[in-house]
Amino acid sequence: MPELRKDPIIDRWVIISTERGKRPHDFVVEPEVTKGGFCPFCPGNEHVTPPEIMAYRDPGSAPNSPGWRLRVVSNKFPALVIEGELDKRGEGLYDLMNGIGAHEVIIESPDHHANLSTIPIAQFVDVLHAYRDRIMDLGKDDRFRYVLIFKNKGRSAGASLEHSHSQLIGLPIIPELVQEELDGAKRHYQMKERCVFCDIIRQELNQQQRLVLENQEFLAICPFAPRSPFEIWLLPKAHHSSYVEMAESSFWLLAEIFSQTLKRLDAALKGVPYNFILHTAPLRQRNLEHYHWHFEIMPKLTLMAGFEWGSGFFINPTPPEDASRYLREVEI
Amino acid sequence: MPELRKDPIIDRWVIISTERGKRPHDFVVEPEVTKGGFCPFCPGNEHVTPPEIMAYRDPGSAPNSPGWRLRVVSNKFPALVIEGELDKRGEGLYDLMNGIGAHEVIIESPDHHANLSTIPIAQFVDVLHAYRDRIMDLGKDDRFRYVLIFKNKGRSAGASLEHSHSQLIGLPIIPELVQEELDGAKRHYQMKERCVFCDIIRQELNQQQRLVLENQEFLAICPFAPRSPFEIWLLPKAHHSSYVEMAESSFWLLAEIFSQTLKRLDAALKGVPYNFILHTAPLRQRNLEHYHWHFEIMPKLTLMAGFEWGSGFFINPTPPEDASRYLREVEI
Repeated sequence: MPELRKDPIIDRWVIISTERGKRPHDFVVEPEVTKGGFCPFCPGNEHVTPPEIMAYRDPGSAPNSPGWRLRVVSNKFPALVIEGELDKRGEGLYDLMNGIGAHEVIIESPDHHANLSTIPIAQFVDVLHAYRDRIMDLGKDDRFRYVLIFKNKGRSAGASLEHSHSQLIGLPIIPELVQEELDGAKRHYQMKERCVFCDIIRQELNQQQRLVLENQEFLAICPFAPRSPFEIWLLPKAHHSSYVEMAESSFWLLAEIFSQTLKRLDAALKGVPYNFILHTAPLRQRNLEHYHWHFEIMPKLTLMAGFEWGSGFFINPTPPEDASRYLREVEI
Repeated sequence: MPELRKDPIIDRWVIISTERGKRPHDFVVEPEVTKGGFCPFCPGNEHVTPPEIMAYRDPGSAPNSPGWRLRVVSNKFPALVIEGELDKRGEGLYDLMNGIGAHEVIIESPDHHANLSTIPIAQFVDVLHAYRDRIMDLGKDDRFRYVLIFKNKGRSAGASLEHSHSQLIGLPIIPELVQEELDGAKRHYQMKERCVFCDIIRQELNQQQRLVLENQEFLAICPFAPRSPFEIWLLPKAHHSSYVEMAESSFWLLAEIFSQTLKRLDAALKGVPYNFILHTAPLRQRNLEHYHWHFEIMPKLTLMAGFEWGSGFFINPTPPEDASRYLREVEI
């Protein structure tokens, strides 16, 4: 019997096929075709990208030249532009404003073939630091209310360049899905005086059914109502609403579990394209009692089709209890 | 300057690239590869599908044999099952119920190569009648609260069989996106005592900027804040909340404008995959003052990537004003 499961935070239902559950080898993952040729993200080509906004580099090396471990630049084809005023206005019934925002690329490594699932932990820490540093910096611009950090890995997940990179978009409004999550978490808090994510963590550590990995400070779970087969959430065990509140000493542990999680995903579903998204409190909002930052990793294994577009429902052919078991048991 | 535009019904924002707007030939539409081979939807193979639930057939022809113009069967691999009780329950923090529901396939024509954009209008009327008849029939089952009618055309839009068909899923809950739309429309009605869709129709007929086609009773527009390039909505000009309320005399006009719209889409973007979804009032709800049934057609030209997954925002590289002009002017 399939199950209808509800996400405990927002009103999102998924249909889980519990009977003919798809296993990792039931999914056809198209191998990525390496295009080769010129790469604007490789060292030596710094002049091709917009000038760097930030970089972690060797002492003494000059900006926009080789010698960097990680580099952040504006997106050359930005969805939003950084200069200008919002100029909120109406057009009859409709509301619009200028597309002001930040759109940046975080080049995660100078190595063209680097992959987050295999880079050294120290390098992963650089990536996680860069996320924090860019959120902190953009938070100083009052026009922005939210910075969304995300990664598209693989062409079918939306990556147009193969050199490993993440992106961020700074927005003048709080995105709908973020607001829904904040509202859902607040409703739970108002009813129970507890953070819904803390409740989830407690239940998952207790049940062990959907747990993928844990260490002293973090855990990786397949969520109860996942939109995508092998969807994974990474959460800090202690309550923190904003990613930028994370203690310096926690970055290594986060990088370790994140790296391990991606390694396991890659071992279970060789080269699977994925998206991940950092869910954190809006800019300049600190210490929210009802919200809990986390990463959501969404492997690209199913299509958005008419049913999903029309309903907001997802059909997931792999129960998270099965997915987490495959991920725990896979040889890496 | 890109624009941030808000959907007037729900809190959904899109980023419209007004400057480097993509024109039809900027999109690469992968041609569908015809697989050939055995087709379970072709006449003569009726025994391969589950037994027919309904068919429009020649007088005297027997069920589950050739002689039909249109045939509705259960999906052989249903996402939900029709038999059983919902058995709503909790698992600690989580809510779930049995996956009870209807999942049916509407085989639109006996002709394997038929295409909604080229079939005769009378045949299109059959398809539109079938949608109504199935909603009416499933509405008698009190376990169901909503019937979602949708079509996936083309492999990348989610169609696994090429023989032209639509689908329906009958659900024991009102899907999140439908509820959001109902709520948004109700908020507008409470403020203005007018239907938001009627307001949209008035503005679009007045401005003519996003109008694709109109006839006596219907219009096709590119909506102000479309998620997808060349997204099109088809709406009845007169206020009706439920598709099943449509007068018999209106079906021909709807079929005509629907056919013309798909023809134009296909002429502008040769063989483009698409989804369309019928948005109508929940089962057994009639004459809602705030809601207005319509079809939404979403060509598959962009990917859902990390940004879309994380924000609920969409980035649309083609302004609807440009899209509607292309669609109006394309030679068919």
